[in-house]
Amino acid sequence: MSKIQSYITAHKSRFLNELIELLKIPSISADSAYKDDVLKTAKVIKDSLANAGCDHVEVCQTDGYPIVYGEKIINPNLPTVLVYGHYDVQPPDPLDLWDSPPFEPVIKTTELHPEGAIFARGACDDKGQMYMHVKALEYMTSNGELPCNLKFMIEGEEEVGSENLGHFVKANREKLKNDVILISDTGMIAKDVPSITTGLRGLSYVEVEVTGPNRDLHSGLYGGAVANPINVLTKMIASLHDKNNHITIPGFYDKVENLSDAERTEMAKAPFSLENYKKALDIDAVYGEEGYTTNERNSIRPTLDVNGIWGGYTGEGAKTVIASKAYAKISMRLVPNQDWEEVTDLFKTHFENIAPKGVRVKVTPHHGGQGYVTPIDSLGYKAAAKAYKQTFGKTPIPQRSGGSIPIVSLFEEELKSKTILMGFGLDSDAIHSPNEHFGIWNYFKGIETIPYFYKYFTEFKK
Amino acid sequence: MSKIQSYITAHKSRFLNELIELLKIPSISADSAYKDDVLKTAKVIKDSLANAGCDHVEVCQTDGYPIVYGEKIINPNLPTVLVYGHYDVQPPDPLDLWDSPPFEPVIKTTELHPEGAIFARGACDDKGQMYMHVKALEYMTSNGELPCNLKFMIEGEEEVGSENLGHFVKANREKLKNDVILISDTGMIAKDVPSITTGLRGLSYVEVEVTGPNRDLHSGLYGGAVANPINVLTKMIASLHDKNNHITIPGFYDKVENLSDAERTEMAKAPFSLENYKKALDIDAVYGEEGYTTNERNSIRPTLDVNGIWGGYTGEGAKTVIASKAYAKISMRLVPNQDWEEVTDLFKTHFENIAPKGVRVKVTPHHGGQGYVTPIDSLGYKAAAKAYKQTFGKTPIPQRSGGSIPIVSLFEEELKSKTILMGFGLDSDAIHSPNEHFGIWNYFKGIETIPYFYKYFTEFKK
Repeated sequence: MSKIQSYITAHKSRFLNELIELLKIPSISADSAYKDDVLKTAKVIKDSLANAGCDHVEVCQTDGYPIVYGEKIINPNLPTVLVYGHYDVQPPDPLDLWDSPPFEPVIKTTELHPEGAIFARGACDDKGQMYMHVKALEYMTSNGELPCNLKFMIEGEEEVGSENLGHFVKANREKLKNDVILISDTGMIAKDVPSITTGLRGLSYVEVEVTGPNRDLHSGLYGGAVANPINVLTKMIASLHDKNNHITIPGFYDKVENLSDAERTEMAKAPFSLENYKKALDIDAVYGEEGYTTNERNSIRPTLDVNGIWGGYTGEGAKTVIASKAYAKISMRLVPNQDWEEVTDLFKTHFENIAPKGVRVKVTPHHGGQGYVTPIDSLGYKAAAKAYKQTFGKTPIPQRSGGSIPIVSLFEEELKSKTILMGFGLDSDAIHSPNEHFGIWNYFKGIETIPYFYKYFTEFKK
Repeated sequence: MSKIQSYITAHKSRFLNELIELLKIPSISADSAYKDDVLKTAKVIKDSLANAGCDHVEVCQTDGYPIVYGEKIINPNLPTVLVYGHYDVQPPDPLDLWDSPPFEPVIKTTELHPEGAIFARGACDDKGQMYMHVKALEYMTSNGELPCNLKFMIEGEEEVGSENLGHFVKANREKLKNDVILISDTGMIAKDVPSITTGLRGLSYVEVEVTGPNRDLHSGLYGGAVANPINVLTKMIASLHDKNNHITIPGFYDKVENLSDAERTEMAKAPFSLENYKKALDIDAVYGEEGYTTNERNSIRPTLDVNGIWGGYTGEGAKTVIASKAYAKISMRLVPNQDWEEVTDLFKTHFENIAPKGVRVKVTPHHGGQGYVTPIDSLGYKAAAKAYKQTFGKTPIPQRSGGSIPIVSLFEEELKSKTILMGFGLDSDAIHSPNEHFGIWNYFKGIETIPYFYKYFTEFKK
């Protein structure tokens, strides 16, 4: 048993309990009702970094939620790694679909997690994966095994667009100076198939409002004679995809990078079972853009999805009303080279253009971010690959993720350094969904693997 | 000043206060949270009928909310009029659009109601109009002016489909025996343009549920690769109308009665200003089925409107989720000859047929009713017309309404008698909408006009 393994074994229950306590705080950044909880979480992170061995920790105020910064500088001549993570979580609703309360963590075993998994909102995304780094730091400092300088930047607005982090990074280039950025906020293909995320999709998130008559109307007296904002909204949204599920917004695909057949063939090698995929989601068929496989549709192709829609009477029973307004939240996942602000403008212009007479349309951009691709020949990637090889006994597979971490491309722009995405979650961990969980095995495997990354990265830099 | 006018003048404030007290009770039949209030309202109606002079009153239990029955039989050889009304109201939401709380009635003047109008949910639909009949009864009994026998049947489930009233009527044909049925639950063209509703649209109200994946999913990891129930629902709903706004459900129009050019020309004579109509609703254009005027679209043509839609994240901020389920409440207004149960089946079959692979669809019929047309050469119509002439100084215009009173066609079927719709509300009274109100002038005008109907109907029957 390696030294780190014995350390983890010795402190297992404490490592679990500390994470469980952290998961009990409902740090929902999207809902201002939880403001105090989000602020409390920042304080907890600050203390945990200090206890784990940071020389200097601070809670940096922003126009939104604070950013927790911590550092352990052992020698200015050694490489510096900046660890990024977030302590905010997605809203937990729909609550009725959770088997246990989202902020009352419980450990249960599942088919994929026979060693048990912690069920709670944020268990995997990102409190669990972020806290692996805190515990890895504790191990390295308390055992004199820290090979390089470390900086931590843990934010509280990742789930709502990281807007203030952007300002913070621009204003603190010197303080955040580093040789490589390390993030654990992604997944791997399977427990026995380690993988490193080499690509992320960009994001444009907008809210639309369609207004018809100036008040709700009786559907009998006015039905058929005035534009019904809900009917109109459904027509407008439906028209955003053609029959092949291509997005119809003019210019939307202009900058989309098309992968070569060679690259697509390489991608197709990643282990994937369409049958298991459909079975896990209980669907009889997949659905998506004509001409692309499931793995391509959710990684190298841009998409447009309605994340929420509402209007009219949604209560119990029946109300014969024509609503004055109808709303939808719509997000577009973008691929590298698509500029999120440009796409947001394209959407806004198009959506306003297709509004029929009789209604008024308002498009409000929420937030967004650029896509990102990291080269697999960088020192950081090689160090990560060797670390996985060390603890998993297998060379990880490079993989494009469909998710977005908007801030990553900004890091490269402002800090001039590459980001390595070492994720230890699984697609089945239900992040953003009811019953989110994180495998205990994955949690400890992450803590075990991270120190090797620092070791090999420092060696490679020499 | 006529005798009835002086009586109204003498009791003005009491007539208003009694209605205001009635409007304070939130008798929302669609929402079970208001069960006690609905039951309390039935009791209040029972007492008010007894106080107004009924010999016999009772609260008849049903499987749902009770039906208040009352009668005043002065002579079995005289004609009998059955008055129908309802004491339940529509849900008041969206509450934030009300200028004053829906169940705290206030009297305010408006452009159309310089004498003031009572603002409250149910003011016009139907508590206010129903209560006119109670006060007309009070006048006639206390002044020995009742010319015929009267029966009252006031239900508490009109806004949710009158299902139990149907059972009640079938089970009490003898008790409800009458020569004509009188209802005040419709409107008139304008205060100086009295009209009698000669046609009502039928209704089919359904709720649809689209289920995709078995749980909410992260829109980054799954976006573009699985059917998004909200996107699918918008496509399915959008496809229910073609580019000319004809409804695309196969067989939907098969039994629709097409009016002759002569009839359409006659209809077109009713005073109507498209400019004022658009101005009142603050819309730049009307919208509807190609080839028909606004007045035709909302009266002689069937329609399909979404009354409510919901799914995914609808809270504050942004959540990048693909919902497992999406829902909509959809109602179709039908014209005479269309059978609502048949149309409901057509909808269900069609909606299930157009569901793409990757989702499951559930269609749940809520309730419905047949359309209705009443001949203008019946004694009842003539008596009503003469009554309006007496109090308005003008012969009323026969008018088709776009609204539905599902029970009317059942009355004819089960009780073999025609229904006369003497409405005193205005389209602008915002029934089913925020700030519903009923003009004081209209309220008293109704009380004044109703006794003349009994007088002339009794005379015509001799």
